[in-house]
Amino acid sequence: MTTASSPATPTAVDRVLAGDVRVAARLMRDIDDRTAASRAALKALHPHTGRAYIVGITGNPGAGKSTVVDALIAHYRAAGDKVGVVAVDPTSPFSGGAILGDRIRMQRHFTDDGVFIRSLATRGHLGGLSRSTFDVVAVLDAMGYQRILVETVGVGQDEVEVMKAAHTSVVVTVPGLGDDIQAIKAGILEIADVLVVNKADREGADRTERDLMHMLDLRAAGERKDVEIIRTIANRGLGNGSGIAELAQAIERHREVAWTGEGGATRATLRAAAQVAELVRGLLADRVEAALAARGGLRDVAAEVVARTTDPWSLAEAVVGTL
Amino acid sequence: MTTASSPATPTAVDRVLAGDVRVAARLMRDIDDRTAASRAALKALHPHTGRAYIVGITGNPGAGKSTVVDALIAHYRAAGDKVGVVAVDPTSPFSGGAILGDRIRMQRHFTDDGVFIRSLATRGHLGGLSRSTFDVVAVLDAMGYQRILVETVGVGQDEVEVMKAAHTSVVVTVPGLGDDIQAIKAGILEIADVLVVNKADREGADRTERDLMHMLDLRAAGERKDVEIIRTIANRGLGNGSGIAELAQAIERHREVAWTGEGGATRATLRAAAQVAELVRGLLADRVEAALAARGGLRDVAAEVVARTTDPWSLAEAVVGTL
Repeated sequence: MTTASSPATPTAVDRVLAGDVRVAARLMRDIDDRTAASRAALKALHPHTGRAYIVGITGNPGAGKSTVVDALIAHYRAAGDKVGVVAVDPTSPFSGGAILGDRIRMQRHFTDDGVFIRSLATRGHLGGLSRSTFDVVAVLDAMGYQRILVETVGVGQDEVEVMKAAHTSVVVTVPGLGDDIQAIKAGILEIADVLVVNKADREGADRTERDLMHMLDLRAAGERKDVEIIRTIANRGLGNGSGIAELAQAIERHREVAWTGEGGATRATLRAAAQVAELVRGLLADRVEAALAARGGLRDVAAEVVARTTDPWSLAEAVVGTL
Repeated sequence: MTTASSPATPTAVDRVLAGDVRVAARLMRDIDDRTAASRAALKALHPHTGRAYIVGITGNPGAGKSTVVDALIAHYRAAGDKVGVVAVDPTSPFSGGAILGDRIRMQRHFTDDGVFIRSLATRGHLGGLSRSTFDVVAVLDAMGYQRILVETVGVGQDEVEVMKAAHTSVVVTVPGLGDDIQAIKAGILEIADVLVVNKADREGADRTERDLMHMLDLRAAGERKDVEIIRTIANRGLGNGSGIAELAQAIERHREVAWTGEGGATRATLRAAAQVAELVRGLLADRVEAALAARGGLRDVAAEVVARTTDPWSLAEAVVGTL
């Protein structure tokens, strides 16, 4: 390894721009580690971004999101597009273990150099998942992947944050889930641009679609948004199952409506604003760590709260005051 | 309404300490609104906290968490304890709608003035759920509720954060969930002090318990922790179902092991440290908002990122530089 391959150098940036997968993978690790070099590289890559179309895929656990992703990859590859995949797991603070299964499932694409798959776990960075997602998506974008799929495992607030990096958010559900899951959908439904009823050959698909339409009607009172509901039976292996071409078409229709003209410009600005806000939060978190370290570490300080010689609010104000 | 009932005044603090539910509810609304008055009240209440035992309850959607909470309330009430409940919904950024169902389910306790139930949604505050949870728990603690149950709807990173406010974390699961849900458990399992297999009369309870034991064994290599697995069949209405007394006993055993002696003191400090960190993050977020407003708002600034005359990282650094 030569020094020229470090992500900070112009050569490394050039290599990423030329689509060098190894240098890109190293840069993504540096992004995870929050190095200054990765930040410099991201700044240099930014003028080369903005070409990729980014599709977020979230939904209920068990709905078959990764099968849908798998089928979409095959669909876009057949159309000649290069595809980047970011598999985000907010439920795994410790390692990428929980998404290993997904990676194995997607392995039929591993030998295809038109497909780049990258996993992201939280790694203990609070609220940093959205930030890392934006950064990794930017690298894939600059590398020339025309389609970028961002997949998340669940349906929580983290997923809502991560989906801010996407142009079109696809929410995948499935017939036969319980009441609690219906309730969860109320939150995630707000961000859906396209809804997918996967495993649509299962009993109850009609009812699920009716329920979704009903929920969409309910929210129409607030902000009216046309959301298509697509039925899929996503398969692995040979063929892509039914409904995948229709899903891809629905995504294209949303792209036309949402991301062209004046509305598209507004949306692009809001997306950039979300990213900057995320980066600012991250930079401040680093400062807080430094400020706490200067006070002898958070743990020593917190002992005063337990002894009740001070209270958490006064202490927090004192820490912020030293910044 | 007299000025004396404002949460900022000593009288209001005294009323909360005396258990006044109306003044407490008003204070909790002020906490949601992040008012200076609520901060002052929380500082004044802090010396009166530290007596309640806080149990967090999380787990898979559909596992029957709120039924378990309902049965635990009845159990603790029968033992003569006052019970506070905080129902946290990280999936609902817009309103408490998704947890309305839970509130209705728990309504048999609404007429019992030994039970105080409060819902928390995200309300657009990024990462602020854990902060609000700590604050609301502190109010309930100061009011003299001996048992505080913190219930969350899902199994994401938000839930992991929220559980930092608890002394004992109970993770509820149920037989017959799919593969993806098994994967999610890998993340949430790390925070479990007690595991519950609810609806244990369902087919597959043995297998679920075996799977959980296997997963516990797998993690033993890292940090060994004794986690009891309790089977419950939680009922609503008459009786509390089977296994609830056993669950309460398991919680007490964890309390003995984890929260007494030197280990307990360390844990208390770590818990306070988590709270202070959360508060610091919140205070900084407020500052960022002010700094961005001074630059003409985030949206105007973000247009430069879209035009690619600057990049998100340089812009974020500039914003932080003005703080």
